[in-house]
Amino acid sequence: MILGQRENPLRDAQDRRLPRIAGPCVLVIFGVTGDLSTKKLMPAVYDLANRGLLPPGFALVGFARRDWAHQDFAKIVHDAVRQHARTPFREEVWRQLSEGIRFVPGEIGDDASFDKLQRTINDLDEARGTGGNHAFYLSIPPGLFQTVVDQLRSHGLADQQAGRWSRVVIEKPFGHDLASAKELNRIVSEVFPPWSVFRIDHYLGKETVQNLMALRFANQMFEPVWNNNYVDHVQITMAENIGIGGRAGYFDGIGIARDVIQNHLLQLLALTAMEEPNSFEAGQLRNEKQKVLAATRPPARMDLHTARGRYAGGWAGGEKVRGYLEEERIPADSKTETYAAIRVDIDNRRWAGVPFYLRTGKRLARRVTEIALAFKRAPHLPFTATDTEELGHNALVLRIQPDEGITLRFGAKVPGTQMEIREVNMDFAYGGSFTEASPEAYERLILDVLLGDPPLFPHHEEVELSWEILDPVLDYWASLDEPPQDYQPGGWGPALADEMLARDGRAWRRP
Amino acid sequence: MILGQRENPLRDAQDRRLPRIAGPCVLVIFGVTGDLSTKKLMPAVYDLANRGLLPPGFALVGFARRDWAHQDFAKIVHDAVRQHARTPFREEVWRQLSEGIRFVPGEIGDDASFDKLQRTINDLDEARGTGGNHAFYLSIPPGLFQTVVDQLRSHGLADQQAGRWSRVVIEKPFGHDLASAKELNRIVSEVFPPWSVFRIDHYLGKETVQNLMALRFANQMFEPVWNNNYVDHVQITMAENIGIGGRAGYFDGIGIARDVIQNHLLQLLALTAMEEPNSFEAGQLRNEKQKVLAATRPPARMDLHTARGRYAGGWAGGEKVRGYLEEERIPADSKTETYAAIRVDIDNRRWAGVPFYLRTGKRLARRVTEIALAFKRAPHLPFTATDTEELGHNALVLRIQPDEGITLRFGAKVPGTQMEIREVNMDFAYGGSFTEASPEAYERLILDVLLGDPPLFPHHEEVELSWEILDPVLDYWASLDEPPQDYQPGGWGPALADEMLARDGRAWRRP
Repeated sequence: MILGQRENPLRDAQDRRLPRIAGPCVLVIFGVTGDLSTKKLMPAVYDLANRGLLPPGFALVGFARRDWAHQDFAKIVHDAVRQHARTPFREEVWRQLSEGIRFVPGEIGDDASFDKLQRTINDLDEARGTGGNHAFYLSIPPGLFQTVVDQLRSHGLADQQAGRWSRVVIEKPFGHDLASAKELNRIVSEVFPPWSVFRIDHYLGKETVQNLMALRFANQMFEPVWNNNYVDHVQITMAENIGIGGRAGYFDGIGIARDVIQNHLLQLLALTAMEEPNSFEAGQLRNEKQKVLAATRPPARMDLHTARGRYAGGWAGGEKVRGYLEEERIPADSKTETYAAIRVDIDNRRWAGVPFYLRTGKRLARRVTEIALAFKRAPHLPFTATDTEELGHNALVLRIQPDEGITLRFGAKVPGTQMEIREVNMDFAYGGSFTEASPEAYERLILDVLLGDPPLFPHHEEVELSWEILDPVLDYWASLDEPPQDYQPGGWGPALADEMLARDGRAWRRP
Repeated sequence: MILGQRENPLRDAQDRRLPRIAGPCVLVIFGVTGDLSTKKLMPAVYDLANRGLLPPGFALVGFARRDWAHQDFAKIVHDAVRQHARTPFREEVWRQLSEGIRFVPGEIGDDASFDKLQRTINDLDEARGTGGNHAFYLSIPPGLFQTVVDQLRSHGLADQQAGRWSRVVIEKPFGHDLASAKELNRIVSEVFPPWSVFRIDHYLGKETVQNLMALRFANQMFEPVWNNNYVDHVQITMAENIGIGGRAGYFDGIGIARDVIQNHLLQLLALTAMEEPNSFEAGQLRNEKQKVLAATRPPARMDLHTARGRYAGGWAGGEKVRGYLEEERIPADSKTETYAAIRVDIDNRRWAGVPFYLRTGKRLARRVTEIALAFKRAPHLPFTATDTEELGHNALVLRIQPDEGITLRFGAKVPGTQMEIREVNMDFAYGGSFTEASPEAYERLILDVLLGDPPLFPHHEEVELSWEILDPVLDYWASLDEPPQDYQPGGWGPALADEMLARDGRAWRRP
């Protein structure tokens, strides 16, 4: 531990219960000049240090095409921490952390640069006792993975030797379809064995996603109704109220289905729908997720069970905003979707007959991620029809962001002379119930990489199964002549998406 | 309707949906000088008038041993309304209501007094078109019932003729044991047929009690776990933080088990445990309540499954308070209990093996009435033992008073690096969710008497079934030499009650 003292006030009861602390190690980040690195990774490393969760002698190495000395890079890290860290800045923590900061300027295609990297790491192994334990964070475009992992191998940095470890961390997108995902996995797995590959889907590091497992499996009340006897359908939503911003170069041609459904939404589906694992040991959790993803069918009728859209210009949130085609660097003939909705069904005993509707979009009414289980209506109502005319489906809503929490929607009697039933909400706010602060997803995930604890990281099988679900949709959309349907900014997406649910006699939630 | 206008702002959407309005009628109250009459009945009559729910030509007649003219009584009603009514005072509503107010001075044993009552009612039937429809509210000790109903019969006021009605309203206590309850019922039913007898248990007029039925039967989520597969036990509590106050004369010798368990708590048990009725038609609802009460066994082992106590003197809520034996007019050798707890079991398929613990007491820590379903722990926990060491039973708590609402207690993940589960509450507040004001229980119940709508009134069979459950407990306690166990004021009752649950491996809630 950097601080070393067990009395660290930022080290809470849970931290103290950690079964073990990572051994001394080096974290190497490729792509330290990117947004992710400065806004998330560097602050998360500092926050971990501040909480006393980093091993003694921890070292952070940056690699990029910049002509920086170690101190220059340390200054970059320092500024990122001051601006974005979650926990307060403490001079002594920073001083200890900064002693282990190094920078290697270089090109990834350049052998000499990797010689330098190798020497830097070897020096650290000596100087700080990191003893050959290295994690390589590839915060770079997937097209560069092959070169980097080959360099790591040829410089002996990927060696798996007894008593030491070498791990690689990669970020989504894990390919842009099944074939490319397989190719990506081939590249990485030729150098790194499966247990040393950590795929980051930062959604899985979120507290509320983990709370989904606690809710389902630590309680007695929910699991009995968590099946097709009681659930009518499930809606999983990730909505953004902003447009693509400066991400045109990455986004156009990819689209939001690849960007969000393939990873976040299908991972949420897997955690919502999977059977109970024997324990949360990584292998068992992955088995259950894989099993349910393998049972998940692509939309049965592409024309009826998918919808895509593209935001038009107009007014949203009191502001005039550009349409997708008016955004900078978007070609006039772009057919990229900024909204996508699909219906999938799960072919197993628990879920047969229960559609899962997934949707995601930009420039929608608000920023919200949630999983909503809509229950069937009670099989019999001992009330008059008028009593219950305002009663809809019971719903259990897991709010993932913002306002993390759980809402139960059910019918209650309206005060008065009649047995009139109306829907009300029962609410649990994660923030209101715990004094413990939620760590950032990246704190949790980086810590797990250093500990070698893989349950929260998707396996390449899951990635491929997800592409198998999404590929037919992407193929279908690519085959269409017309572009995605326009939708007004600040609303809830294209008319096609509403029609898709209306055909099933249902409607999207307006969360 | 007194106001006549459909635009009455106090007449809410539900009131407007009332299937019918009561026909013109006279409400006669015996015992108008009592607390119940001035604090509850008169204000409720005014509030109903104010909401436009009283029939045109409605008349209110008071009967008591006072030398009052009509105006004197009207003044009493006026003052009671000004002081205790729920809705704002409006001069024009009062004027119309007061036109129908009459007073008959007299003794209930005196024929001439009832001649006068008869004439007054006959005059009203003429003057206000009440047409022979009369409700008699017996807000008097049960010992006087025989005399009153005989007088009503001999003066032709209890006649059930086609096209008109005569109803009688009686208040608990419905006897003090099975034999006296049967005798009371014999007295009343010799004169009034069953459908014209309205027994008031004002708890059943409370919104939250009715909401219990809405919760169970209008929703899909709760009923599947509402049985012995998932419920570990049920606790029904009615706690008061005050002592007996000025009620020594009534209370001593009766005790809290007769005063509360026989009626309120066993009615709450019946509504919690009953099967779903086909509809809320009175006969069907009563059938279900009777069925479950008939299946409810008295405590199997009186020594193990009952506990009684008596509050000692001491400090409670920052105040020095007297013990029960130091209260005014309590004999030194009193053995009356001020706390009672019993365990009953229900012999049917739904509830076999699920104990229902009922408790009530005075001078406890706070005033609260609630029904708590404690669920079994999840059958398997895919967590480590440490993860869940702070996890107890899931619980669904129906809060009846104060803070009417529903609480769901379940396990959620504590934010942090570990899968640590802790209990949290999800909350629904009745007051926070509806803009509609809750009518007072007596508004609802008086209106139902005038409408002849009996679902919320217990049938005499239910009363007798309840005594069959309680009588053996009372007999057992009467057979003991020692007095009830002392308990400290401001706590949660006698040690015996805690031991009673501890023997079953459970503990009372501290609500």
